[in-house]
Amino acid sequence: MKDFIFDVKTKILFGEDQLENLGREIKKYGNKVLLCYGTGSIKKNGIYDDIVGELKKDGIEYFELAGIEPNPRVDSAREGIRLVREHGISFILAVGGGSTIDCAKLIAGGYKLDCDPWNILTGKAKIEEALPIGVVLTLSATGSEMDDSAVITNLETKEKLAFANAHVLPKFALMNPKYTFTVPKYHTAAGTADIMSHTMENYFTLDDCYFQDGVAEAILKTCVKYGRRAMDEPENYEARANLMWASTWAINGLLSTGKSADWSVHPIEHEVSAYFDITHGVGLAIITPRWLEYCMNEETTPKIARFAREVFEVEERDDKKAAELGILALYKFFESLDIPMHLRDTGVTEDKLEEMAKMTIEHKRRNIRGFVELSEEAVLEILRKSF
Amino acid sequence: MKDFIFDVKTKILFGEDQLENLGREIKKYGNKVLLCYGTGSIKKNGIYDDIVGELKKDGIEYFELAGIEPNPRVDSAREGIRLVREHGISFILAVGGGSTIDCAKLIAGGYKLDCDPWNILTGKAKIEEALPIGVVLTLSATGSEMDDSAVITNLETKEKLAFANAHVLPKFALMNPKYTFTVPKYHTAAGTADIMSHTMENYFTLDDCYFQDGVAEAILKTCVKYGRRAMDEPENYEARANLMWASTWAINGLLSTGKSADWSVHPIEHEVSAYFDITHGVGLAIITPRWLEYCMNEETTPKIARFAREVFEVEERDDKKAAELGILALYKFFESLDIPMHLRDTGVTEDKLEEMAKMTIEHKRRNIRGFVELSEEAVLEILRKSF
Repeated sequence: MKDFIFDVKTKILFGEDQLENLGREIKKYGNKVLLCYGTGSIKKNGIYDDIVGELKKDGIEYFELAGIEPNPRVDSAREGIRLVREHGISFILAVGGGSTIDCAKLIAGGYKLDCDPWNILTGKAKIEEALPIGVVLTLSATGSEMDDSAVITNLETKEKLAFANAHVLPKFALMNPKYTFTVPKYHTAAGTADIMSHTMENYFTLDDCYFQDGVAEAILKTCVKYGRRAMDEPENYEARANLMWASTWAINGLLSTGKSADWSVHPIEHEVSAYFDITHGVGLAIITPRWLEYCMNEETTPKIARFAREVFEVEERDDKKAAELGILALYKFFESLDIPMHLRDTGVTEDKLEEMAKMTIEHKRRNIRGFVELSEEAVLEILRKSF
Repeated sequence: MKDFIFDVKTKILFGEDQLENLGREIKKYGNKVLLCYGTGSIKKNGIYDDIVGELKKDGIEYFELAGIEPNPRVDSAREGIRLVREHGISFILAVGGGSTIDCAKLIAGGYKLDCDPWNILTGKAKIEEALPIGVVLTLSATGSEMDDSAVITNLETKEKLAFANAHVLPKFALMNPKYTFTVPKYHTAAGTADIMSHTMENYFTLDDCYFQDGVAEAILKTCVKYGRRAMDEPENYEARANLMWASTWAINGLLSTGKSADWSVHPIEHEVSAYFDITHGVGLAIITPRWLEYCMNEETTPKIARFAREVFEVEERDDKKAAELGILALYKFFESLDIPMHLRDTGVTEDKLEEMAKMTIEHKRRNIRGFVELSEEAVLEILRKSF
């Protein structure tokens, strides 16, 4: 186990009766709020009215940044920063899933810099302070509510890049499983795949972190148990609650403690969705089994076999066979969530595969050094198999 | 899953090369330190010299409270509070295991009150503010390093009581697995049993918290895998590191999120060790299998069967048989750690069993409402079987 620092101070308010605490939590930090949300679903399902009612009741002034896109764009953050400056805003409240939260992080971290916020993504500027952020979560997927990183897309440059900074870790997250009851089947499936992918990126390493890997298996098994159920019974509270709480722990730092996990599937998928704007979780689900197939060698097979036995109850004693059965079970599980398991079925065109493989390595500025090392050629092979 | 708040802000600095960060972390909070430690082992194994050298290097003034007992006594906290007041101390550094940390918590929370600190334990006084606490952990057991509770013994009144207060949550914990290399076999075993007991107190409920229970199983399996190994190979870094990190998560609040766990074995054991000063973890190990046997009924058996299959790889399909095999496997595991599995072998005398059962319920002021409800008679039956 490698040395690490774990310093995750987000306060979690979980459950169906936490809304009344929202005003009190916000007022610890500020009284003038930028209310960030997506493309309108919170207006249809009543969450918007709940939140705004609560802000008004507590005498909290707010301004709105609406229409934040899935795969949030740097343009939205630019507009948010403009609003923050214009109105002297002191707190950012993100109501939504990972896209809205990630955009809020770039606004919070970018408003003090005297350069374009895209510079944070390219590493040309660094966040030294940030506005405090609070979250009301409406989607179980990215874990951005208890995490200090964000992924932002720039359509002009066809880039989808990430940054991480402790200053943008949310101060609190209000997590009501009922707020995910209206998430459609397709996004429930994609969210489940996203949770599993975060977990597997951290899980599939060669470090001896037995406890952390056990937690990872607990998250994966929670997804297997409740992913389909949440699609079939969208108002099943226990299913939604278990997925929601597991999603937070998939990426808040616990799973990577003691490890040196260089993520593999995410950088590949980021290129795919930078080019084609496909749903992140769907891209991850398609690529992951092909990546695991590519990874199989003498050193990695025992871990994939452990995965097969622990997560999918594969009873095969031979490691190689067990590993193969585990990868197949993972593929079948994603299929059972009605995820199209080929890139060609999601709008991706074959002529871009080479370019995406090239850009994957170019954005890393080196090969991916994860479970196995991936060169541009390796990425291309995985993309071709995923196609 | 029930509503909950999870708000655990302790910063963890884990690994063999974290000592150089100690001074920086302390100076965030204060510059005059009360250095608390136990009965001298840190002087023998060099940890004391490490710490004091680091404090001196960073120009941090310190005063010492040495000799804090296993099952820490209120007298030690009284002495600590006297030192804090006399020297205007601004930070408490606890170097040790749970006993030292718990004593530090009572000092930190009690120094501002104008009454005896024992009143905090009896509920007659409440902590409204506390000195900041830092921890250098030397024993994997109680999880007190990332937890806001403490257990203190009063030998005059023969009471061992607990308190919990958010103000005494440690600000940071420095966790170096090498600092546990010199922990003797007996205390390594007792610590492992303690970790497992915390986990099982939270695990054995009837709530639907599938993810949390999976984390609990990960901790239990870590103890099963590494407990004996750490005894046989005291300098096995991976074994010590896995036990250490698992011990923290057994009781920092994650396992109890969404649950209403009324602990059962701890209140019983607290009476035993208030009367006889036996090692806490040993008492827990002896009582737990007998408690689980007592708990078995139609409602609880499936959960015990799940425990058997997940933690001890019991392959029996019948729930009742699997549960029985699981309890037996737990008993045998504790036995394999060389723990004496009868109270009579630890100095406890039979004539006190009735009194201890009576006091268990008296200190709760009601029956224990855990996995199953326990009356005074039930506690006595469990104690008799444990004897």
